[in-house]
Amino acid sequence: MDSSHTAPIRPLNHRARIEPATLDDLPRLVDLTMALFELEEDFTPDRAKQERGLRSILEQPSRGRIFVARTDYEILGMVNVLFTISTAMGGFVILLEDVIIHPEFRGQGYGTKLVEYVIDFAKRKDFRRITILTDKISEESQRFFERLGFRHSSMIPMRLTLGG
Amino acid sequence: MDSSHTAPIRPLNHRARIEPATLDDLPRLVDLTMALFELEEDFTPDRAKQERGLRSILEQPSRGRIFVARTDYEILGMVNVLFTISTAMGGFVILLEDVIIHPEFRGQGYGTKLVEYVIDFAKRKDFRRITILTDKISEESQRFFERLGFRHSSMIPMRLTLGG
Repeated sequence: MDSSHTAPIRPLNHRARIEPATLDDLPRLVDLTMALFELEEDFTPDRAKQERGLRSILEQPSRGRIFVARTDYEILGMVNVLFTISTAMGGFVILLEDVIIHPEFRGQGYGTKLVEYVIDFAKRKDFRRITILTDKISEESQRFFERLGFRHSSMIPMRLTLGG
Repeated sequence: MDSSHTAPIRPLNHRARIEPATLDDLPRLVDLTMALFELEEDFTPDRAKQERGLRSILEQPSRGRIFVARTDYEILGMVNVLFTISTAMGGFVILLEDVIIHPEFRGQGYGTKLVEYVIDFAKRKDFRRITILTDKISEESQRFFERLGFRHSSMIPMRLTLGG
């Protein structure tokens, strides 16, 4: 074919897909979490901490997964999916954290696609429940999760931060 | 000694101690969680589910621990300590669940001793934070955790329960 020497052998894909992040993605994932924690009242962004936490999840797939929406060029958004056990539900459950879309790519449905991907993953893997701690001030964030089927709970979180 | 044939060879201990639960404790732990979930708005008690969840934690110490306050005769109370990773804190964190004292042994400080034991365990093992989801209606429960150093968060939980 005449065009073969001008066209890339493996054409780069502009279309977004969702897949597990790898250690290669770590710098971009740190950027995304830094941006999130700057917005949240409860947290102070700290590059070294975020990198350590993200690396720890990427290195221990039994603890959780980080899924990203990406093209061949860049990461558009991420979610952090942690696995734990619930005595109430009688099995494994998911804690969904760090649902972040890069500001340039918001309002295009990537957040919804990522969370729907997690719901499908959870169903396939027989997880019993997904819990997210969302900002109580942000109505927009609550409505986003309500549209995806999440419901408010009668529980509230209390936290004790330990030194170190 | 003259008294040796009347005294027990290994005297049973009436004093409470705190230690990790084992699979032998499972029936009593199920009883305790059943009693808790009967009180909580979000949950419906289910013996088979509670047993499956508790067994799953006891069999996988990398996922968490169940600590009990006990004498040689009985279990006075329990706490369920689950391990996960926080990107915000940059390391392992604890989810504290199922803080339950048997009704006969309440008001004697066992709940405080159990939670203080968990805080000490968390510090020794370099966990960064302890989170508990407490009932938002129960002021008593909130004050209990406040006295132990826990603080309210600006987050609220939303949950999606999955079939099965």
